[in-house]
Amino acid sequence: MIKTDILIIGAGPTGLFTVFEAGLLKLKCHLIDALPQAGGQCSELYPKKPIYDIPAYPEILAGDLTQKLIEQCKQFEPGFTLGERAETIDKQEDGSFIVTTNKGTQHQAPIIAIAGGLGSFEPRKPLLDNITDFEDCGVEYMIKEPELYRDKKVVIAGGGDSALDWSIFLSDIASSVTLIHRRNEFRGHLDSVEKVQELKNLGKINLITPAEITAINGNGKVESVEVTKKDETPIIVETDHFIPLFGLSPKLGPIANWGLEIEKNAIKVNNALDYQTNIPGIYAIGDVNTYPGKLKLILCGFHEATLMCQSAYQIINPGKRYVLKYTTVAGVNGFDGTRKEAPKAVVKAIE
Amino acid sequence: MIKTDILIIGAGPTGLFTVFEAGLLKLKCHLIDALPQAGGQCSELYPKKPIYDIPAYPEILAGDLTQKLIEQCKQFEPGFTLGERAETIDKQEDGSFIVTTNKGTQHQAPIIAIAGGLGSFEPRKPLLDNITDFEDCGVEYMIKEPELYRDKKVVIAGGGDSALDWSIFLSDIASSVTLIHRRNEFRGHLDSVEKVQELKNLGKINLITPAEITAINGNGKVESVEVTKKDETPIIVETDHFIPLFGLSPKLGPIANWGLEIEKNAIKVNNALDYQTNIPGIYAIGDVNTYPGKLKLILCGFHEATLMCQSAYQIINPGKRYVLKYTTVAGVNGFDGTRKEAPKAVVKAIE
Repeated sequence: MIKTDILIIGAGPTGLFTVFEAGLLKLKCHLIDALPQAGGQCSELYPKKPIYDIPAYPEILAGDLTQKLIEQCKQFEPGFTLGERAETIDKQEDGSFIVTTNKGTQHQAPIIAIAGGLGSFEPRKPLLDNITDFEDCGVEYMIKEPELYRDKKVVIAGGGDSALDWSIFLSDIASSVTLIHRRNEFRGHLDSVEKVQELKNLGKINLITPAEITAINGNGKVESVEVTKKDETPIIVETDHFIPLFGLSPKLGPIANWGLEIEKNAIKVNNALDYQTNIPGIYAIGDVNTYPGKLKLILCGFHEATLMCQSAYQIINPGKRYVLKYTTVAGVNGFDGTRKEAPKAVVKAIE
Repeated sequence: MIKTDILIIGAGPTGLFTVFEAGLLKLKCHLIDALPQAGGQCSELYPKKPIYDIPAYPEILAGDLTQKLIEQCKQFEPGFTLGERAETIDKQEDGSFIVTTNKGTQHQAPIIAIAGGLGSFEPRKPLLDNITDFEDCGVEYMIKEPELYRDKKVVIAGGGDSALDWSIFLSDIASSVTLIHRRNEFRGHLDSVEKVQELKNLGKINLITPAEITAINGNGKVESVEVTKKDETPIIVETDHFIPLFGLSPKLGPIANWGLEIEKNAIKVNNALDYQTNIPGIYAIGDVNTYPGKLKLILCGFHEATLMCQSAYQIINPGKRYVLKYTTVAGVNGFDGTRKEAPKAVVKAIE
């Protein structure tokens, strides 16, 4: 059982900033995310896209934003359960909650902060009858650990940036990479398209277009896929892995069954004070919540996270008075023993 | 008469970010600030101090934060009335407001955003009977335009960073700089203290400590000051300017008389939606406002500014539906004709 002060569901920008604000209040955090890395949409969907409305960043790439937020909170030593989806929540007699993931990992905390964004990102799956039989046995919809593919035969399907970028990346690791797309045209960054063209010319990526995967074969694990080009006889491509990268779509998912008030696919919160839901001790912050005037902006998630931590502090430390200290004045004391502080002014005679 | 869509009182971080958020909604802003430059406390009181809780900035100097915010909003071409304090507000028959400064400058707008921080910064003045007679006639409590002092004789009083830094700066511009402090010890950045020591040794700064200014002499304008060292006979130092830099203290000031609900030296707002005050069309955002759960943090001011702009949009464009567009998707169209946008994905065949 993983125990923490604030269990954060969702490791996107709002969840990461919660770690920092909680840390200033000496509260520890653990984050659960269905994606294999922190950063939420920013890392998974558009890491190379610029965002223009993060305060004091005239422009920042979404992936860089994630890195900055991780850097900002790392001295508060957050724990992570990544690649697992929060599935159930159970209130305990002592008032705490136990959250269990789809892989069975259990987490206990007195405070739950749902920073789930638009929901957990679920992969769009190809329409192949037996595909679920091969999930985690050679079929993966997301690449969590590239080393899994070292010296293996890999077939990737898809026509966007994920398919392009992972084909490039794995061409150095896998023994063979076959990229299959139903059109000749790919949609992605110019650099990525050109790089795949180059690797194809060098024979490092085997490209089959326009084509579709029409069957998966194997006995307990993937052994080959059937590839069909229009008006042609299907061919069999031997492979250890089949990775369809057809995009992710957000689903509120199991959170919708936790007894929280839901409105327009978002969790209703009391915005007058602390972004708490109808269940005391459970907060919803960032894009996942709704209240009158709500804007689904990252900068609003930062504010909500900050107010939420103050409220959580009161629940965890009943009756204890907290006096806000400015970081410029009080510095930042990391849980890892580091300390950041402004250089002190000197008092020195001039003679 | 200066006319604008949103008249912002206070050019600190919250005020500056309001310009950006308003700009996204195609609303123009003008800012009034009692200080001679934008940035509020961050620029005036602690430009070289690090702040650790600006989201996605593990550390940023307050002065750099100001520069980033100015850079972020500059394509929306804000107007500035600096070095003047908003003094009165008058509601017009058409529902707009006219705000007049202590120098008589008039501004008209349908929306007022008070982003006044802790209030306007008023200088602490030396206790000298006739000092007010010389204000703007040789006595200045803030340096607004360094060129004013070119080839002039200057006396600066004070023992902190402002006195040190301006003595250093003006030693290159003024014909003579005399620095007077009631102790031998100065309190400031080590660099600044050492630099003043060096300039004193070079004869470029005339240092008199421990000493106080005990009188100002002149006919219509400052001609000399009387300097008294402990247990010694006062001496007369001829000067064109006397600049006491004894610090600034924030005062809510004239805003307190505008008919707004005030609680604990802050303006009460409706936080349920848009941070509007008891007077429709007047908002209060950032440190100057109060509501249950309020935290006086810069990041909260950013959120409040953003929600406030949406509400202002509805007042200025009654009945017009606004659909939030993400900057990553829609880009940013500056009023100066510039456009920022994410690089477009290409659609390109690989052959």
